[in-house]
Amino acid sequence: LMPLGEWGLVDWVKKSGGRMPAGVTGPGDDGAVLPWKQEADLVVTTDLVAEGTHFFADADPVEVGAFAAAVNLSDLAAMGAQPRGMVAACGAPETVPDEWFQGIAKGLWRALQPFDCPLVGGDMKTAPARIVTGTAFGAVPHGMALLRSGAKPGDVIVATGRFGGPGAALRALEAGRVSRQEMMRVVFDVQPRIEMGIAFRDTGAHAAVDTSDGLARALALIGQGSGLAVEVDLEAVPLHPMVEQEGLRDDPEGLLGVLAAGGEYELLAAVAEDALQEVLAAADDSGVPLSRVGVLRPGSGVHGTLRGDRVDLGRLGWRHR
Amino acid sequence: LMPLGEWGLVDWVKKSGGRMPAGVTGPGDDGAVLPWKQEADLVVTTDLVAEGTHFFADADPVEVGAFAAAVNLSDLAAMGAQPRGMVAACGAPETVPDEWFQGIAKGLWRALQPFDCPLVGGDMKTAPARIVTGTAFGAVPHGMALLRSGAKPGDVIVATGRFGGPGAALRALEAGRVSRQEMMRVVFDVQPRIEMGIAFRDTGAHAAVDTSDGLARALALIGQGSGLAVEVDLEAVPLHPMVEQEGLRDDPEGLLGVLAAGGEYELLAAVAEDALQEVLAAADDSGVPLSRVGVLRPGSGVHGTLRGDRVDLGRLGWRHR
Repeated sequence: LMPLGEWGLVDWVKKSGGRMPAGVTGPGDDGAVLPWKQEADLVVTTDLVAEGTHFFADADPVEVGAFAAAVNLSDLAAMGAQPRGMVAACGAPETVPDEWFQGIAKGLWRALQPFDCPLVGGDMKTAPARIVTGTAFGAVPHGMALLRSGAKPGDVIVATGRFGGPGAALRALEAGRVSRQEMMRVVFDVQPRIEMGIAFRDTGAHAAVDTSDGLARALALIGQGSGLAVEVDLEAVPLHPMVEQEGLRDDPEGLLGVLAAGGEYELLAAVAEDALQEVLAAADDSGVPLSRVGVLRPGSGVHGTLRGDRVDLGRLGWRHR
Repeated sequence: LMPLGEWGLVDWVKKSGGRMPAGVTGPGDDGAVLPWKQEADLVVTTDLVAEGTHFFADADPVEVGAFAAAVNLSDLAAMGAQPRGMVAACGAPETVPDEWFQGIAKGLWRALQPFDCPLVGGDMKTAPARIVTGTAFGAVPHGMALLRSGAKPGDVIVATGRFGGPGAALRALEAGRVSRQEMMRVVFDVQPRIEMGIAFRDTGAHAAVDTSDGLARALALIGQGSGLAVEVDLEAVPLHPMVEQEGLRDDPEGLLGVLAAGGEYELLAAVAEDALQEVLAAADDSGVPLSRVGVLRPGSGVHGTLRGDRVDLGRLGWRHR
């Protein structure tokens, strides 16, 4: 573990208001130390974002850092965990100036601060390309983590936010209708649903998952994880304005394509019918759009209805790396 | 967090005897979940290893994975922490077959198993080059983590293992005296000193650090961290056989060069004179070579004696990434 101080960032952190919670030993030693005195399970997740795959070499490092933090927080949210800290390892070619690393750290803090989640350490290395690996850890009351398994027949599937934005933005870029910058603004616009993850957990949701690999894939994970079939009403899935802009609402194939593309970092949860009102009220309190998109039934597979047609969502592709 | 199952590795893990401790939810969900029911502080560390910087593109991925795990465990050792789990994020170009990722996971497990430390999750992404980021976490009784600060005037500095191997091996490679494979065997030979880290902690060592960035740098970290001067007897520093082989024992400049090169992943600890016997006995029990290499004094700076000459070790270079 390289001290962030070696990046000249301990100073930056102080100046920016980024602050370590009391009792936390952050950057500057071989490891970070966090008091963990309550009876809470530890939830850990790691995500790698790489030049060429997730961002362009000339992307603003602050945006890249914020994205790297947000996608990790989204995984914690899907587990119903309260973020407690994050570490990040960054690599870049020798020709990349230290300011790039500083930008990454600034972006990480920007995304972490709203959740009182400190950047407790990191690593910085010469690498053949720009990459950032974030690892976030959070706490959840013992035995209460939300898994993909546990959904029950009759559970309603609810989804936060809106879908299809990143897929539609990529399509628009390829057709020359938006700039790279406009596309990346949609891709980088990740709002970790921490509050809703905790609300799902506290209202007794049976299962949850994040939709980073696409809505279809996320539905399949809950269905397979719980040994159930998923029926989804595709017309009830709220769409990102970019989907409308691309005219995809009236193009079933195109719509399914952007829904399969992923990149939304929203949450799906399986909720018992009689807990639904409480969950909707929690979403309302948080100002998070929450939609009822489907239901779980005995059986297997993921099917949707779109304009009266029955669609097999299991056939939608999914890149595993 | 991508389930390792998507790498086809959950099966591999089962076949290899890699096993999750009871109560741990490992790969296959948005995050790993570990029960953390004792009053133990959480210690977290992250390290990135990259093609070109740490290994050649054609390196055996099993060796690369084992190295990535070992360097993280070494940081936990330096904190006096008991390893509890690890996650790893791997990137490689699309042309790299899945077998490379499987080799990485196999290597990670190989290094983790001796410490009963499970690989609880990971991520796998397309990236412009081969990289592995490991993040390890461990437990330490509340308030007992070994930091760089805390050493006291009169403390003895002890060091595990032998020094100069990686630096001498690189020198030998550059001169054509060893093959890339022979050099990498020395570099990849990392033995995480977990048992000694815990022994340092339990015998009341005042400070500890790992020597990954070189002996000189590690001595400086303890000195600066504790506000003290370091006096080191360079002739008491045990040397790797490769250093002898390169004829560096009788070449003070060359010797200082390989000692500054780093890559040893050994531990330094600051121990009170009256705790020294207990520490040496613990090392003896563990079969770990432990040497008395220096002492801490009021003041600042890091100086060594070599053949009667006083050497300023503060001047030795140190690459910060």
